[in-house]
Amino acid sequence: MPKCEIIAVGTELLLGQLTDTNTPRIAQALATNGVDVYGTHEVGDNRDRIAAAIAAALERADGVITCGGLGPTIDDMTKEAICDALGLDVELNEDVLHAIERIFSRTGRQMRENNRKQALLPHGAMVLPNPNGTAAGFIAFAAGGKFVAAMPGVPHEMSAMLDGHLIPWLRERFSLKSRITTRILHTIGIAESEIDHRIADLFASQENPKIAVLAHDFRCDVKLMAKAEDQAAGRALIAPLEKTIASRLNGYIFGADDETLEGVLIKRLVRDDKTLAVAESCTGGRVSARLTSVAGASQTFLGGVVSYDNVVKVDALGVPEELLAQFGAVSGEVVTAMAQGVRKRLGADVAIATTGIAGPDGGTPEKPVGLVWLAVADPERVETLQLHLHGSREIVQVRATVAALGLLWKIFYAR
Amino acid sequence: MPKCEIIAVGTELLLGQLTDTNTPRIAQALATNGVDVYGTHEVGDNRDRIAAAIAAALERADGVITCGGLGPTIDDMTKEAICDALGLDVELNEDVLHAIERIFSRTGRQMRENNRKQALLPHGAMVLPNPNGTAAGFIAFAAGGKFVAAMPGVPHEMSAMLDGHLIPWLRERFSLKSRITTRILHTIGIAESEIDHRIADLFASQENPKIAVLAHDFRCDVKLMAKAEDQAAGRALIAPLEKTIASRLNGYIFGADDETLEGVLIKRLVRDDKTLAVAESCTGGRVSARLTSVAGASQTFLGGVVSYDNVVKVDALGVPEELLAQFGAVSGEVVTAMAQGVRKRLGADVAIATTGIAGPDGGTPEKPVGLVWLAVADPERVETLQLHLHGSREIVQVRATVAALGLLWKIFYAR
Repeated sequence: MPKCEIIAVGTELLLGQLTDTNTPRIAQALATNGVDVYGTHEVGDNRDRIAAAIAAALERADGVITCGGLGPTIDDMTKEAICDALGLDVELNEDVLHAIERIFSRTGRQMRENNRKQALLPHGAMVLPNPNGTAAGFIAFAAGGKFVAAMPGVPHEMSAMLDGHLIPWLRERFSLKSRITTRILHTIGIAESEIDHRIADLFASQENPKIAVLAHDFRCDVKLMAKAEDQAAGRALIAPLEKTIASRLNGYIFGADDETLEGVLIKRLVRDDKTLAVAESCTGGRVSARLTSVAGASQTFLGGVVSYDNVVKVDALGVPEELLAQFGAVSGEVVTAMAQGVRKRLGADVAIATTGIAGPDGGTPEKPVGLVWLAVADPERVETLQLHLHGSREIVQVRATVAALGLLWKIFYAR
Repeated sequence: MPKCEIIAVGTELLLGQLTDTNTPRIAQALATNGVDVYGTHEVGDNRDRIAAAIAAALERADGVITCGGLGPTIDDMTKEAICDALGLDVELNEDVLHAIERIFSRTGRQMRENNRKQALLPHGAMVLPNPNGTAAGFIAFAAGGKFVAAMPGVPHEMSAMLDGHLIPWLRERFSLKSRITTRILHTIGIAESEIDHRIADLFASQENPKIAVLAHDFRCDVKLMAKAEDQAAGRALIAPLEKTIASRLNGYIFGADDETLEGVLIKRLVRDDKTLAVAESCTGGRVSARLTSVAGASQTFLGGVVSYDNVVKVDALGVPEELLAQFGAVSGEVVTAMAQGVRKRLGADVAIATTGIAGPDGGTPEKPVGLVWLAVADPERVETLQLHLHGSREIVQVRATVAALGLLWKIFYAR
């Protein structure tokens, strides 16, 4: 297994002003493709220190990957430091120069001498094209076949270069035959411990694919990771295990990989030609906000009422005052009336309602902070769910939102 | 200025499964207190590699700070690696042992041999107490006065130890006389370039405090950083500059430090004994969600209507159908009617309304994606604002939300 080290360059990192997200992104891509990350480092914008860090890392590893410090300004000196570490001079790369000239002529900005400087690469280096900016990346070579790959620090420039150029080059260079293919199954309405219990035997017996259970706000993912020659072979290894897990978790898996709970719900409702309305108290608009984050939500989502005050529950949703007086706003009776009310008032086929005590104040011994009632209604029925949530105001609001969407999914689409 | 390096320990970091937030947290605390961070590193759970990284860092710096790898399990070996690097043996620390025993007896769990192992510290080390867990931190000493400070990797355990014990020790050890005091002024409704223009002379003339302008989603912060002996002296340095900047940015600063726009609005509305209602189209519930994220919002926020479909605008808000037909849903006329409608229907003193095209579909040449109309109404008047926003659906939704809250602030509270 080839070994690499990662060096992130930038004084702002050492001041803690910026959290380095490039290093974990690169580390993950290397791990997925079978490259061992031996260590990572952050260094300031100092030519000697960057060169020293590169030289030290090259003694331990087969290659070093840097990111940051490739821009046109005076404090960008990663390229010079790489030359120092490898004993190389720079030379003008015509291809890179033309690419930079094209960007400037296209955007109508004036090119300066320091932009021209960006076309100077270490002698003998291979270009890593940058589709999203002027800072070209490159791979420079040391005597003995070790290498230093340099990428810019802007995350979307680095990511495109990593996936499009560096990883393919590494796979060929080191004849990497295996790759980790990942499949994530999203569940709702089942606890992490219950998932563990249902698939414990698979955990123990499975070496490839590996299985991991990840808990999120009020729902869990099951992650399958297969090591295989390519993605097709990885998928073939995953398929039978996924089938087994799907049958063990029957009725709880709502989607996979990039799918979201709100996205799946909008898609299903559109397909079934059903319209949706929402009445929210304790979630304060979060259920509607999640649903409307999906492009095309307007095909099914009519709207919602945030009935924070009881007067709004009565006037805008038609909740009977005597229900509020008898059972209180946080009750199965009121959440039922809210769901029925918003469904009728907005003329929707289906409705979701939430009411609860988000805290930190407002709890009583009978109705403590974290008590939440949810309801889903259609013309035939109303289903309610009572929850006791723990945590801060924000956690209660977020979990109640996820649970409300989950209840809709469970009633209409789980099977 | 004393120099330190930071080493984060954990194989999961090198696999990119976890983003290291401890390193920037420690780096920031060191920078604030006048310690230079010379470099940072991530190393896997490997005793030899951890020891080698510590030894190399100690050659460059006055001290090394590690985090992670202090737990009771077999893959926790930072302590052993520190002993290797410094040539020290471990010895039982009775104070730490008693502290661990107390935690176990309090929680009723059974203490195991590997928990007892956590009470072994490098010979001569100073304890850094852990108020939030069983893993004690410590400072071990090398010949020549250099040191290695070890802290656990669980963020809230690390943070408490850092602020409560390590930083005070470093300040005394290196007689650190200065500290950076920070003041953040939050603005809304003024562009970054306009702020730059208004305070350009202060930027140039100011060495202490330093000034930085930071852009967020549709609003900017002005950050003042003063270097002084203590916080009181830092505040005294900041006060006159803050006054000057406040007068240059008169009418745009809504709060400072931990204050949020929604928090300031709720506080002011409660103080003025005014109630608030919201009608949202393109923001889909985000304005209500922000307002209800504030504890105590129910004292002023009555509720809202998410009128995504035009039928809801007509039925729930009383927007005249002829307005929708003549001007379209995204227009100054309709947003005015939405604000007036929700104010009257919900019986509120003040109302906010939003309508727009969040995209990616639904734009036309006359009304492109990103066109947003906002309104704020009270019994006497309605003020509207038209915006042309750029970016993804999410960016348009978030910026429209911030701008809507900003419009309310501008009309009632800016002076």
